[in-house]
Amino acid sequence: MIDASTRTTPFTALAAEPRGLKGVVVADTAVGDVRGAEGFYHYRQYSAIDLAEQRPIEDVWQLMIDGALPTTAAQREAFAAEVRPLRAIPPTVAAVLRVIAQVSEPLDGLRTALSLAAAGRGMRPNIDIDAAQRRADALFLCAITPTLLCALHRLRRGLEPVEPRDDLGYAAGYLWMLTGDEPAPAHADALEHYLISTIDHGFNASTFTARVVASTGADLGACVVAAIGALSGPWHGGAPSRALALLDEIATPDRIDAVVRPLIESGDKIMGFGHAVYRTDDPRSVMLRDVALRLVAGRPVDDPQRRLVTFAVGTEERVVALLDELKPGRRLRTNVEFYAGVVMQLCGVPAEMFTPTFASSRVIGWCANVLEQAADNKIIRPSARYVGAPPPAVVPAYAG
Amino acid sequence: MIDASTRTTPFTALAAEPRGLKGVVVADTAVGDVRGAEGFYHYRQYSAIDLAEQRPIEDVWQLMIDGALPTTAAQREAFAAEVRPLRAIPPTVAAVLRVIAQVSEPLDGLRTALSLAAAGRGMRPNIDIDAAQRRADALFLCAITPTLLCALHRLRRGLEPVEPRDDLGYAAGYLWMLTGDEPAPAHADALEHYLISTIDHGFNASTFTARVVASTGADLGACVVAAIGALSGPWHGGAPSRALALLDEIATPDRIDAVVRPLIESGDKIMGFGHAVYRTDDPRSVMLRDVALRLVAGRPVDDPQRRLVTFAVGTEERVVALLDELKPGRRLRTNVEFYAGVVMQLCGVPAEMFTPTFASSRVIGWCANVLEQAADNKIIRPSARYVGAPPPAVVPAYAG
Repeated sequence: MIDASTRTTPFTALAAEPRGLKGVVVADTAVGDVRGAEGFYHYRQYSAIDLAEQRPIEDVWQLMIDGALPTTAAQREAFAAEVRPLRAIPPTVAAVLRVIAQVSEPLDGLRTALSLAAAGRGMRPNIDIDAAQRRADALFLCAITPTLLCALHRLRRGLEPVEPRDDLGYAAGYLWMLTGDEPAPAHADALEHYLISTIDHGFNASTFTARVVASTGADLGACVVAAIGALSGPWHGGAPSRALALLDEIATPDRIDAVVRPLIESGDKIMGFGHAVYRTDDPRSVMLRDVALRLVAGRPVDDPQRRLVTFAVGTEERVVALLDELKPGRRLRTNVEFYAGVVMQLCGVPAEMFTPTFASSRVIGWCANVLEQAADNKIIRPSARYVGAPPPAVVPAYAG
Repeated sequence: MIDASTRTTPFTALAAEPRGLKGVVVADTAVGDVRGAEGFYHYRQYSAIDLAEQRPIEDVWQLMIDGALPTTAAQREAFAAEVRPLRAIPPTVAAVLRVIAQVSEPLDGLRTALSLAAAGRGMRPNIDIDAAQRRADALFLCAITPTLLCALHRLRRGLEPVEPRDDLGYAAGYLWMLTGDEPAPAHADALEHYLISTIDHGFNASTFTARVVASTGADLGACVVAAIGALSGPWHGGAPSRALALLDEIATPDRIDAVVRPLIESGDKIMGFGHAVYRTDDPRSVMLRDVALRLVAGRPVDDPQRRLVTFAVGTEERVVALLDELKPGRRLRTNVEFYAGVVMQLCGVPAEMFTPTFASSRVIGWCANVLEQAADNKIIRPSARYVGAPPPAVVPAYAG
């Protein structure tokens, strides 16, 4: 425990916290948690993996925002009826979406479009509105995100946006808006597993960003737009396509050692391996490997998709062995990103949409965290230790 | 000092840090520091107040980004030549700025416009580019911010944007773009004092937000867009107009006690008073009071501007006395926002542009911090303490 009273002493030999605040508890939360040592994480009181296996994402969305799972058709329908009309792109945003799509990757485009949509909705600072209004703002941002992402993707490729459909579930509807084709149920189910499993995950950098912004009393839009920026960083959400790119680079099983060993030896991070919190298998990775294997089960051995999954599983085994050999004691395992790319590729999500698709589910977690922060807030304002040249120096004269 | 190895233990009786990370040292920095107990803050090795009194903001901008003040005309001109062409609004942004302005307050509009401008520039993740490219991205964002803000403000009022002028300094040019009129030198000088004094101020919430986003490897645009969101929160940047609104509400000196005493007694925060770090006079407030007094010195006693300043000074004295009486030992003093609103009003900046004008200078501080973070990075990913119902609970059945 830190004695806060000593921390305001300026310019002395203060010890900085562990770099990156790693392991430092910055707040209390009832949204969920990650138990790194156990390879377990949960949303509210439920295992996230159990939820992914047993519930549609709409139920988990309701759990995250309202705190309870629906258990009756009436509860489920009430939530769906609230959310359905919020998915349409507002006219103001539609008017400029083509320009945004022209110059922006989909995730950066989402950042711009959501920023505009929030302003267009007239969102007011969280501290000036009640919990019901904050909840409505949160549902709006969560509902419009998949629509915007798919429209941005299509416009960028010269295709017209596809409208959301009321008769499809969330993941099927996502693939519909993305491709314009009704997806195979197995693909919708696989993607839904991925989406549910990525809704929340402790105080990762984007969730923490959302909470810091929320702590200033800013509106939901400001919080989510900021979080999107954090997610766009390659060290956070930007890696699923890089993990798949590693598989592409390795290309064949006999090349694993030749490609990966030098990377490890030179100290490079291996995309798709290692995690800030897990010291054992990442439960998302374990589930997504199963999801991938189920998708290709029963197909011929030379089916390209089956070959991709087999290759990925083989690569995982070999790379983990190499990491154990070259980084003994670190226990580096596949993280969520390794199989996320595989599953999304199998479902027909193009690589440029991997991180945006992650944003589509994570926005629910961001909003749940912002709502919690807004309900019991204190501004997050840490300190730094100054290590530059000692002040005050005389301002040098300008010689003109 | 915290033993980091104990912090990954999940779901045990971990002590949370002081709420809001108050006083917790989260990083080393050479950008600047705040000595709360001394009422002193500095940029690099120089007193920020000395810089405001002795240098134009362009010099301080250079100091923050490049680490040194120019001391010759050649150095000053080299920087000006670099920055000048970056102030123009890119065609892609200009094409949609009217739509943005229509539905957005200027600061929210800036968030959208800068997000688009960053994408339009093709900004790439900080970890994928070198220091020179990151610096170029930073200069672009700092240079375009005042232009965008003034254009958004004017478009919102049905006026055409005013182009930047090469023959005016930063603050004079800002007032020119804002109003379309060439300002009195005294107004430009007063605003410049304000702008310089607000470039940076420790790890405030927006600066910290920018650094958290930067820690993911994201591009400069993502970092600054996120910081704008944090600044839009009333507990952070959203207060200057509220402080002036308090003066409006008090209206006459004889009403100070009647308005303020009940606010203090009911535990409300008094806008413009109190600071997270200063335990004595806020040096920015002291300087801006002088700036305001200089602006109206020599005017007739019944000049409206002189009366505003006299009223503000009188209100400050009385409110501080009331706070000392009702909150003994807290040493609550005026913060930067109290006289910021007064000075900006005197200079002809309308109230809706107070916080945006703050953003115009603070963006320089954000960028300096992001460049520092990018140069020696580790992802900022803290932990939380789970306090909800204990997992894993059995997922309830859906009754259909």
